[in-house]
Amino acid sequence: MRTVDLNCDMGEGFGHWRYGDATDDALMEIVSSANVATGYHAGDPNIMNAVAALCAEHGVGLGAHPGYADRQGFGRRAIAATSDELVNDIIYQLGALREFGRRHGIAIQHVKPHGALFMTVGKDAELARALVDALRKTAPDAFLYCLQGFEAFNAATAAGQPVVREFYADRDYDRTGNIVFARKMRVLDPAEVADKCVRACTEGKTATVDGGTIDVNFESICFHSDTPGALAIGKAVREGLTGAGITIAPPAHLAAAA
Amino acid sequence: MRTVDLNCDMGEGFGHWRYGDATDDALMEIVSSANVATGYHAGDPNIMNAVAALCAEHGVGLGAHPGYADRQGFGRRAIAATSDELVNDIIYQLGALREFGRRHGIAIQHVKPHGALFMTVGKDAELARALVDALRKTAPDAFLYCLQGFEAFNAATAAGQPVVREFYADRDYDRTGNIVFARKMRVLDPAEVADKCVRACTEGKTATVDGGTIDVNFESICFHSDTPGALAIGKAVREGLTGAGITIAPPAHLAAAA
Amino acid sequence: MRTVDLNCDMGEGFGHWRYGDATDDALMEIVSSANVATGYHAGDPNIMNAVAALCAEHGVGLGAHPGYADRQGFGRRAIAATSDELVNDIIYQLGALREFGRRHGIAIQHVKPHGALFMTVGKDAELARALVDALRKTAPDAFLYCLQGFEAFNAATAAGQPVVREFYADRDYDRTGNIVFARKMRVLDPAEVADKCVRACTEGKTATVDGGTIDVNFESICFHSDTPGALAIGKAVREGLTGAGITIAPPAHLAAAA
Amino acid sequence: MRTVDLNCDMGEGFGHWRYGDATDDALMEIVSSANVATGYHAGDPNIMNAVAALCAEHGVGLGAHPGYADRQGFGRRAIAATSDELVNDIIYQLGALREFGRRHGIAIQHVKPHGALFMTVGKDAELARALVDALRKTAPDAFLYCLQGFEAFNAATAAGQPVVREFYADRDYDRTGNIVFARKMRVLDPAEVADKCVRACTEGKTATVDGGTIDVNFESICFHSDTPGALAIGKAVREGLTGAGITIAPPAHLAAAA
Repeated sequence: MRTVDLNCDMGEGFGHWRYGDATDDALMEIVSSANVATGYHAGDPNIMNAVAALCAEHGVGLGAHPGYADRQGFGRRAIAATSDELVNDIIYQLGALREFGRRHGIAIQHVKPHGALFMTVGKDAELARALVDALRKTAPDAFLYCLQGFEAFNAATAAGQPVVREFYADRDYDRTGNIVFARKMRVLDPAEVADKCVRACTEGKTATVDGGTIDVNFESICFHSDTPGALAIGKAVREGLTGAGITIAPPAHLAAAA
Repeated sequence: MRTVDLNCDMGEGFGHWRYGDATDDALMEIVSSANVATGYHAGDPNIMNAVAALCAEHGVGLGAHPGYADRQGFGRRAIAATSDELVNDIIYQLGALREFGRRHGIAIQHVKPHGALFMTVGKDAELARALVDALRKTAPDAFLYCLQGFEAFNAATAAGQPVVREFYADRDYDRTGNIVFARKMRVLDPAEVADKCVRACTEGKTATVDGGTIDVNFESICFHSDTPGALAIGKAVREGLTGAGITIAPPAHLAAAA
Repeated sequence: MRTVDLNCDMGEGFGHWRYGDATDDALMEIVSSANVATGYHAGDPNIMNAVAALCAEHGVGLGAHPGYADRQGFGRRAIAATSDELVNDIIYQLGALREFGRRHGIAIQHVKPHGALFMTVGKDAELARALVDALRKTAPDAFLYCLQGFEAFNAATAAGQPVVREFYADRDYDRTGNIVFARKMRVLDPAEVADKCVRACTEGKTATVDGGTIDVNFESICFHSDTPGALAIGKAVREGLTGAGITIAPPAHLAAAA
Repeated sequence: MRTVDLNCDMGEGFGHWRYGDATDDALMEIVSSANVATGYHAGDPNIMNAVAALCAEHGVGLGAHPGYADRQGFGRRAIAATSDELVNDIIYQLGALREFGRRHGIAIQHVKPHGALFMTVGKDAELARALVDALRKTAPDAFLYCLQGFEAFNAATAAGQPVVREFYADRDYDRTGNIVFARKMRVLDPAEVADKCVRACTEGKTATVDGGTIDVNFESICFHSDTPGALAIGKAVREGLTGAGITIAPPAHLAAAA
């Protein structure tokens, strides 16, 4: 793999609150794609406007990052809503962000559900199909960010919706390929994270927490802006990849390169 | 005037609550343009989706009806926000509705701020200009519904944003052309309202509460879905206009007819 | 049983929206206890103030009816929050209503979680214990409304928190004693509902949907203000019970009568 | 003046967001009274529970800090609501916090409206009277924090509601005794702020921005947790006052000392 996308969540403040140590301005120097919070779990119109402007300025892919309507829980708590309700919530948020993109002259590049909604769309086949059905109508060219084997991936590929699979720079994997969720993030060594990403790109493999090695398939590397030291990690990953001759670019370039 | 638009607010429920006696389904048989609540003062993604589908089905013009972020006050209480904040709130809501329109194959026809925001955009020249600036970029073809002489009208016409001026079927006028706001709506006689509308279209005049007559200039007649007896009033107006040989049609047809 | 409580949900509007055909004023003439929505799933400070005043005026028991923070879903959609979070949400809502009671000179009589939260507190033993722990400190004399056999009932009785068990006038039972939930409420015959309540009080038995009869144990009869024809049902139940010599009174009177 | 109260806003986070550099834990070591955000402009039930527990642990006076229902604007944007609506909003928030106090064994000590609501209650005589009327019923012993000459002060003293007047450690005064609001806070020298507070306590005077000196009358010194360097400022003020032989204590002690 000679070209890879690098994505990060952005605009995760609300009102006068900000989240994580890394500012959106600083992250824009590093990533090729931004997952922009769309007001339900985080973000508000003022922040969305500012982040969309930054994406336009930096040539960073504008992605909608819709979440559950649970601002207090930061979208990490699932709500027992129907598939139709959740799809309508996503459409609403996607359109809101798209309008800020229009204002700044850029299109929606991708959609990536946030937090608990990412998992629900990943595991619930009915919801995944309903979401892809809606995207076929409103955003047929937008990449759906997901994981291989997830229902979102299955539904999108079956319907012809373009997908981007992710590799997580700042998360550990187990031998089944699942992410090992830690209640409290340990502090990561940026150089180690960079090496992990280079290996994943060049060999298509990554080490697991139980001492093995698994194959990984992806078009985009994700790191999280709320990971302690996110900015240093992002910079190290960018430098590591570039140093290894790998180009960081939005996913449309991947298709062109393939 | 041989052609006029007829508009009404729609989708003003929230969750399982509904507002007014007239259902959105019934109103769709009457109007040519719908002002759809966009989730801030009323409306939610499920309702917006349903109303957008109805607009598509009935050939009714889809209009964004953004309000202050004050659901409890139904958008009738102004919030002392900056112009930039309010414009971002409007962009957010406009985009959200537009996405439901995309889903159902129709474009945004117009924008009409709701309640207290309609008045603030009407009276505050800085806000009016900021809103029009934003619309020039995101929705240059959308009609801005407003009143002649309001700052929204002035800013839009100065910048080339298309406008539609309103005449209020179910409100009284005073000799200065201002609406007389009543704390409690009296019950209106549908036939009288219809006659008033026909006269306004054919003569360009309406009677005032103080016994005089004033000139009125408009492209659209508005009635309110929360006026007691709204459905009967809307039907009477439609029949009265049609009987007088006046065609009811969305504003794009007006331009064509002019 | 010669004395029984009659309770109903109240104050389930929001802002200018109202819910159900029966007004709070009319229901106050019928019930002995009110479950007052506390602003999360329905209700707002203005409505809560008005309903608390009505309770004071009518001598109706003031009950907090806290729900999930899901106004759009009317508290019928569970949120995957921790027990601590949910208890804090309930404490917040309980205190808010209690303050309106103080204003109007009445104390909190009872707590009854709403909708999906009623079910979660009923089924989740950890949450039930955490809630009862909190109530022991903030509202040790408040009755917890629940169902016999539910975790809320078990936790409360184990800790000494007073309980009131409910019988549902407008719901069907199956042979296991569970409520048969219907997606769409059928229209009920008030006289039949009244007879069912009288029998439940006098014989301690009720018919099931599958043709059998079960024992029922309760101190309060509940009917729902959003059941079609709720007001007529409530009146019929009140008249039926009174005619059978059964006194309708808040639960404190039950204890005195026991 | 040998005894003075020292108050600070607390609990101004929301969900996973936090505000200001100073944590609530650290501030508790410094102040004698806490103004606790009550969920409308900031704060949530989990944060309120934690801060109430800290107040109980540290013997810090528990104060309700209700704001406008404007979380995005942090309660700094006035909403054009009626006095009755605003009083109901305050009652709701006050009761919610009181319940967390009950849980942790402490009573409400004071009420201090936040941000734009502090100013509205200060300037609007009708609202001030309506608020005091409500407090006479629900919290007759709670101190209303305000400024001398403000309508809140006038209404409270007229009705017998106890008041506490504030002096602002981290704000500049003009010759009329008004606060000079700066769009961007300059970085303050903690030692200077401490000296200013000691002088205000011992001489009853403070310097103004225009080079003069005015009399100041107060029972409490306020500093803001979002002032840059708030923690160092608070510590310096505490040490300065203590070093000058002035006792820092909640306002009930002031009355006893007078």
